[in-house]
Parts: sequence; C-alpha cells; structure tokens
Amino acid sequence: MFEARQAPHDRLGAHLAADMDAVNTLIRLRMASEHAPRIPEVTAHLVEAGGKRLRPMLTLAAARMCGYDGPYHVHLAATVEFIHTATLLHDDVVDESAQRRGRPTANLLWDNKSSVLVGDYLFSRSFQLMVETGNLRVLDILANASATIAEGEVLQLTAAQDLRTDEGIYLKVVRGKTAALFSAATEVGGVIAGAPEEQVRALHAYGDALGIAFQIVDDLLDYGGTTAVIGKNVGDDFRERKLTLPVIKAVAAASAEERAFWVRVIEKGQQGTGDLEQAMALLARHGALDATRNEALAWATKAKAALLTLPNHELRGMLSDLADYVVARLN
Amino acid sequence: MFEARQAPHDRLGAHLAADMDAVNTLIRLRMASEHAPRIPEVTAHLVEAGGKRLRPMLTLAAARMCGYDGPYHVHLAATVEFIHTATLLHDDVVDESAQRRGRPTANLLWDNKSSVLVGDYLFSRSFQLMVETGNLRVLDILANASATIAEGEVLQLTAAQDLRTDEGIYLKVVRGKTAALFSAATEVGGVIAGAPEEQVRALHAYGDALGIAFQIVDDLLDYGGTTAVIGKNVGDDFRERKLTLPVIKAVAAASAEERAFWVRVIEKGQQGTGDLEQAMALLARHGALDATRNEALAWATKAKAALLTLPNHELRGMLSDLADYVVARLN
Repeated sequence: MFEARQAPHDRLGAHLAADMDAVNTLIRLRMASEHAPRIPEVTAHLVEAGGKRLRPMLTLAAARMCGYDGPYHVHLAATVEFIHTATLLHDDVVDESAQRRGRPTANLLWDNKSSVLVGDYLFSRSFQLMVETGNLRVLDILANASATIAEGEVLQLTAAQDLRTDEGIYLKVVRGKTAALFSAATEVGGVIAGAPEEQVRALHAYGDALGIAFQIVDDLLDYGGTTAVIGKNVGDDFRERKLTLPVIKAVAAASAEERAFWVRVIEKGQQGTGDLEQAMALLARHGALDATRNEALAWATKAKAALLTLPNHELRGMLSDLADYVVARLN
Repeated sequence: MFEARQAPHDRLGAHLAADMDAVNTLIRLRMASEHAPRIPEVTAHLVEAGGKRLRPMLTLAAARMCGYDGPYHVHLAATVEFIHTATLLHDDVVDESAQRRGRPTANLLWDNKSSVLVGDYLFSRSFQLMVETGNLRVLDILANASATIAEGEVLQLTAAQDLRTDEGIYLKVVRGKTAALFSAATEVGGVIAGAPEEQVRALHAYGDALGIAFQIVDDLLDYGGTTAVIGKNVGDDFRERKLTLPVIKAVAAASAEERAFWVRVIEKGQQGTGDLEQAMALLARHGALDATRNEALAWATKAKAALLTLPNHELRGMLSDLADYVVARLN
C-alpha cells in the first residue's frame, strides 16, 4: 500500500501507534469494574467495536505537535474517548436506536437502564482520569465541553419536530453534539503541552471547524449515503423527525404546498410509504444537498486555515488532510 | 416552638441560613440554560420540590465546623446537590418511577429522554462548579464518589431479582447509591477548610455511616412506613424485586417452602394479590425488620462516634442529633 494513499486517520494512527497502544491499554484498565460485571460487558461492546478512535488521536496529535513528552496526553485521550462513549450510550437511549457502527446498540442488547447507568459510570471514570493530570485548565476546558454537549443534546431534543429550527439553532446543536468534544480534544492536547496561547486557540478553532464539518457531512449522508458507508440506515434522521441542515434549507425555500408536507411528516410525524422519497425530491429541487455540501467544505477550509498558526510538523499535514478526508466521504 | 424540639436538619438549616441562601442562589443561577428552555423546566421541578437539602447542609456544616471562612463551601454544597439531583433523574428512569417526594417524577411529566439528558447537564454543571474551587483534592474526592455512585447503581441493577445477593453486596450498593455522596459531602467540607488529616478522615467516616443508616432506614420504611412519611408507596421495592436488607435477612432464614415463595415473587417476578402481605409476614416471622432496625441504629452510633475527633462546635452537636434523627424516622 502506498503511504500517500492511506486515509489520513490511518496515517495518524501509524504515526501515533505507540501512544494509541498506551491509550487502549488505559481504556481497557479503567472501563473494568471489580463489583459490577455488567459494566465491562457493555463497555467492551462499544469500546471494542472498532470505532476509529478519532477523538483520542486528535488529543495525541495536538500534544505531540506542540512538543509534549510527558505521560498525561494518554490520560486525556482516554478521557475524551470515555466521554464520547458515554454520550453514545445515552444518545442511543434517547434516539431509541437499534444500530450503531453497524452493530446492535447496547440498549437493544441489554436494556435502557444499563445504557444510562454504564454511561454515567464511563463519564465518572473520564472525570477521574482527567483529575489525575493535575491540570486545572484542562479540567476547566473539559467541564465546559461536557456542559456544552449536554446542553446541545437537550436543545436537539426540543428542536426536533419543530420547523422553526433555523441554521443558527442547528449550529448550536452541532457544536454540542460533535464539535465541543472535538475542540476540547485538540485544545487540551495543546494545554497539557504548555503551548503558547495563540497555538491553543488555533487548536480549539481547528477542532471546532473539523467537528462541524464532520457533523454536517454525517447529516448529509443520512439523505444520500448507503448503510455500508454510514453504519446506519438512510433516512433515520427523517424518521426521527430531526431538523438537520438539508431539511432546514429545504423548509426555508418551501412553497405553501411543500410546507404542508414538512408539517405533516416532521411536526405531526405522519409518515407513510413514499414520504422519504418525496423529501429527497424536495431537497434536490431546492439544491439543499449541494448547499449543505458547500457548507461542509467551507468548515473544512476553516479547519485547515487554523492549522497555519501551529508548528510546521509532520502531524500538521495529517491533520490538514484529515479535514479534507472528512468531507471526501461525500464522494 | 422550642429550639430543642426542632428537628436537627431544621436547626442546621437555621444555623446555616445565610450559607444556604447563597447555595440556593447559586443553584438557581447554574441550573438555567440560555439555549435549552427544557432544562430549567425539568430542574426547577426537582430542585424546587422542597427536598431537605441535607447533602449541601452537610458540606456547609463540615466546612464551618472546621473554621472555613472562604467562599467555596457554597460551590461545593451546590455541586453535591447537583450530583444528587442528576442521580435522582437517572434513577427515576431506571426504576420507571412515577412518584418522587410525593410528586409525579420528571420522566412522567416530560419523558425519559429529558430525564437522561437533563441529568447529564446537571452532572456537567456540578463538574464546572467544583473546578471553580481550584482544589485538586476536592476534585479527586468527588470524581471517586461519582464513580462509586455509578458503579453502585449498576450493581443494584444486576443484584435486583437475584436471591444470591447477600449483605456484603447490599452494603456495596448502599455505599454507591447513598453513602458515597454523603461521605464526599462531609469530606470536601473539611478539605476546603484545610482541616487536619485526622478530622478529614472523621468527616468521611461520619458521612459514610450516616448515609448507610439513612439508606437502611429508607429500605426498612418501604416495608413498614406510610406513603405520607416516605413520599412513595409501601412495597415499591418489593414490586421492583429489589433485594434490600429486610428481604436478604428473611431469605437467609427461609424454609424450603418460603424460599420457593421468594423465588416466585423476586426472581420470577410472578406477583399477585396477597403476596406483599405474605412477604411482610415472612419478614416478621424471622425478625428481619427488627434485625434491620438494629443495623441502622449501629451505623448511627458509628456516625456519632466519628464526630468525637472533630472540634467541639455547636454544629457538631447538631450533626450528632442528625444521626439519631435519621433512625428516629422508624418510630
């Protein structure tokens, strides 16, 4: 295989292999529970499910790029993955999901109770890990990210099924559900490395823009990808009556008749055969998919621009390619 | 009203009135959310529901008794109440409860989704509050308490419906669901005050024993109290097939025929008319209620003994009376 043809997260993974081994060891150690065997059962299902470990890699890359050679980037990378896994467990309960990464969800295999409580357990374990770094600024960043995540999730819950949801609310939801953890992941890598303020801000801006691009692409693929690519079913967001960017754009441009359609399927939840196809036709008619794709590209460009403030390091090139790769999923 | 006849938590509340006002103000400020109006709706329902605010009072009392005169005992008291409220929200989802403190639960008034996510939000807000104290030892104590709480909840989930649950497992569950937060509440009060190690350990021991006594009494009242006193229905634990101390003791002493009864109602969950009455008759036959009551009294005695290491302060007398009061609920 040619190095240049590897996906950027594979190149990051290869470059950071020793660090990632340490992260995986720490994750396995800390997800265990002496007293409650249900905990490692549930966490193993998720943690071992072959996620890309994108978020912990961002932390490791940021710390290494800023010249860190202490031990705590590993704790922070594991912290970020635990927070991510905890939110997945709770999300699947809230969304009543049956599939995640192409496998049955924990709430389906065990029950909602286990997903709620094991999520709480992982969140508290993440909290222990970050306290071990002894770095109060890192704790502050991760505490704020946690609050933004939780707030974004509640906002998404109330914004769903509500056609008044606009692009501003959408962006807040996206920052909460995705970008807050991406930006915290990169920022704490810089902070633990003692990087200058300007670089810490740049790392935050990169993670924020990358996370937004990532989520917009995810929302777009829900109307255009295949189950094999996205690990869930096309139209899930439509069936869950979520107001994502493509639909928000189509609703904003809707005729009176089209609006009646959206009111019926999204607000009233009266969906039948052919409605998903009709929704996709309306998205196409108003160029909503192209416009959404352009926004994802703009956020990827913003992410790459933020990197220019950072040291000229091999990892910087990989992070830049990663921003391109995230939107290349659309091809 | 004679001072001496007031309940100890009312005397604590009067003594700590100014501090408690500051705690309540901080709680109201931090439970709000600019973006997601569902959050203050749900939290107000719980936070304003007239709970006794026992846990934050423990933190304030511990800090004041150890001579603290800084501002952060207020943050820690609010932290502890937020963690408590977050666990109540998640507990009610897990237990599918319909009533809490004599009012309908949030999961019934809104939905399980809101309870899960608003619980997460309060937990992350508690995390922000404690980070503001800038005290890493306090963060360590609260992180460990959070992990113990979550682990205890999962353990309770798997121990329910399992007749092999013994008194050792029960104690672990009780430490998780109740005593871990009580002991963290008192311990962080001492730590923030810079109290000597011996006093910090005593505060932890007091909170631990008080919490265990409190929970044993709660579990006992489920088989003997009235709805007016306990704010829930008698027999809830029985219907939820929870192995609490009275049942564990009765199962340990059961004849073959009695054991078949417990297998049917707890393990198989086949419950019908007269089964709760039959269970109560078996508890009485084996003296399980008296034995449970004696354990609660022993833990209250242990709590009072721990206080002797602490400064001879007006608050110390109230905390001692509080330990008596907790078990006096049984009369």
